[in-house]
Amino acid sequence: MGNTIKQLAVLGSTGSIGQQTLEVVRALPHRFRIVGLAAGKNIVLLAKQINEFKPRFVHYQDKKAPAHLPDGKYELLSPEDIVRHPQVDLVVIATSGKSGLSPTLAAVKTGKTIALANKETLVTAGEIIINEAKRSKAQILPIDSEHSAIWQCLRGETKQAVQLILTASGGPFRGYSLAQLEAVTAKQALKHPSWQMGRKVTIDSATLMNKGLEVIEAHWLFNIPFDNIRVVIHPQSVIHSMVEFIDGSVKAQLSYPDMRLPIQYALSYPERLPNPHLPRLNWSTINNLTFEPPDFDTFPCLKLAIEAGKKGGTYPAVLCAADETAVDLFLSQHIKFTAIANLVEQTLEQHQSLAHPTLEEILAADTWARQKVQEFIGAST
Amino acid sequence: MGNTIKQLAVLGSTGSIGQQTLEVVRALPHRFRIVGLAAGKNIVLLAKQINEFKPRFVHYQDKKAPAHLPDGKYELLSPEDIVRHPQVDLVVIATSGKSGLSPTLAAVKTGKTIALANKETLVTAGEIIINEAKRSKAQILPIDSEHSAIWQCLRGETKQAVQLILTASGGPFRGYSLAQLEAVTAKQALKHPSWQMGRKVTIDSATLMNKGLEVIEAHWLFNIPFDNIRVVIHPQSVIHSMVEFIDGSVKAQLSYPDMRLPIQYALSYPERLPNPHLPRLNWSTINNLTFEPPDFDTFPCLKLAIEAGKKGGTYPAVLCAADETAVDLFLSQHIKFTAIANLVEQTLEQHQSLAHPTLEEILAADTWARQKVQEFIGAST
Repeated sequence: MGNTIKQLAVLGSTGSIGQQTLEVVRALPHRFRIVGLAAGKNIVLLAKQINEFKPRFVHYQDKKAPAHLPDGKYELLSPEDIVRHPQVDLVVIATSGKSGLSPTLAAVKTGKTIALANKETLVTAGEIIINEAKRSKAQILPIDSEHSAIWQCLRGETKQAVQLILTASGGPFRGYSLAQLEAVTAKQALKHPSWQMGRKVTIDSATLMNKGLEVIEAHWLFNIPFDNIRVVIHPQSVIHSMVEFIDGSVKAQLSYPDMRLPIQYALSYPERLPNPHLPRLNWSTINNLTFEPPDFDTFPCLKLAIEAGKKGGTYPAVLCAADETAVDLFLSQHIKFTAIANLVEQTLEQHQSLAHPTLEEILAADTWARQKVQEFIGAST
Repeated sequence: MGNTIKQLAVLGSTGSIGQQTLEVVRALPHRFRIVGLAAGKNIVLLAKQINEFKPRFVHYQDKKAPAHLPDGKYELLSPEDIVRHPQVDLVVIATSGKSGLSPTLAAVKTGKTIALANKETLVTAGEIIINEAKRSKAQILPIDSEHSAIWQCLRGETKQAVQLILTASGGPFRGYSLAQLEAVTAKQALKHPSWQMGRKVTIDSATLMNKGLEVIEAHWLFNIPFDNIRVVIHPQSVIHSMVEFIDGSVKAQLSYPDMRLPIQYALSYPERLPNPHLPRLNWSTINNLTFEPPDFDTFPCLKLAIEAGKKGGTYPAVLCAADETAVDLFLSQHIKFTAIANLVEQTLEQHQSLAHPTLEEILAADTWARQKVQEFIGAST
């Protein structure tokens, strides 16, 4: 290990996690080098990133991009070809939604090490991804703060865990009644109390859908049954999650809530690296950490997600797609906050799940769910 | 490993930690067998333990003991000979005070694995013990809940720690003023809010001397400079201590405050074993964990201990001996609670320390300090 430089491909480089990944790389240029960047439509930012990090491979979705991109010695490749390239040591999947699925699978099949921030990949296709990873010996390293916390707590004793305890901030509407939730606006929902995140995940944090997706992700990442994964509301977001071991001992991981730490841990693993830009916990100012059980009745998305995870098949894909569509409708002010859970529930109820689905069947379930949500909305407006 | 049975010698078997060690062995008879027991003067209890655990080797201090002990096939040996015996896989040092020193050193020199509950050994002779352990490859496993917590948090990444954060309940007099402390009685001081322990350590918890001794012990066990060991008051005694790593990530170990867990972890290490007798944390009832800085002015023993640890030499031996003598004087109602710290401070001030002391010099400093405390008391009464 010592002073080798890891060569990274970052998919979703212009999103929140992608930008923070590049901040870590910028702070530790002697340890990491960017060889691939892939982005969606934020071409202005991608151009800046290309100028700064000089990747060898680039991908973008926007068809008009070339006019805005700098000239340079990079090669245009598909995300799948970027992650498979032998020069890439570690792939960061920082895209959101189902766009992470295909490149993650390509990376897994090639036996790459993958730092995974995209939730939907494991939620919708956990069985496929994990089975392929076992075959290819690909390592999947979590970037989500909760899964990173669990992964850190399991270090050195992976096989002795009996329960995972995922903490949740509870979001901006913790303690609200259902009636109060009816009236909340997108602007209110986008104000997360402890984390700076993208819009979709911020709304999912407010509905607790995000925590439900994390439960499913934790199930696949750590091979723990759903009944042994517990959610505890912890508004201060200092303890990022915990693991209970077979003897009753519990380990927790704590840090200042800043995504750059779990990102850096995944990049540097098994080492930890000093980084003066990362804030540290200050024990002179932490005086109170609180815990409470989640309110499954007021925040039904949490229960819906856990149930969909338990049932498996194409239910989780339907859950994700229905949620993404409903969140978009909420953000564009077409539906109320509480309608998100209702739409997801109705869509799940009408779904006929397939067991052990293929990738095509997962994508078909996704498409079906999106149409179904639009149908419900059309019918009700 | 699998199902091998570890053969244990327990020194101090009739004390608080000794009895709890035997409870763990009783609960897990397929994993542990008692081959040696050593006790002081509680011959009635020792006789019961001999009948139940049928050790091969026995030691006791009381000269009248044979009349009360059961007939049996055990051999009377010195503590040193017990710990050195080839049948002993793991030595539990559960004695209090300086009586742990010589048998611990014997066990270390023989390269045994030692589960260490005796604080004074590392506090007074840390340099000797750690150097011998390096030479013989003896493993020293902590039993104290704080050090066990740190050891558990370091698992899998021993070399990346930059700060140890020892938690302290604060004892029964947390928040008291110096004036209030003047008036407290032994009975009040013996009521610890979270732990069931022996009398000496309970008083040391009330003065915070115990936490100071733990800082010194942590310094030797984990090879961390004093300036990188911090004490935080955490009255609920749920987080038993924490480790901060080089990237700013912090790991904590949590459990219900019950000494049998850290005892069992030391006995079963590197495995963890299920034990239905161990209470588990209940996340439905934990709602608040609080933290505050220690009050060094009102509880000067903490500062005295850390300073003695930093200075090294024979200062820590004087600290321990003066404290033990003063605690006895407090328990027998000869001095006030606040006089404990005063006597320790005065004794340290008059001491002329020796650098890198031998065991003999450490024991001589101990004797000198005890006499000095008695002198101060004689002069003042």
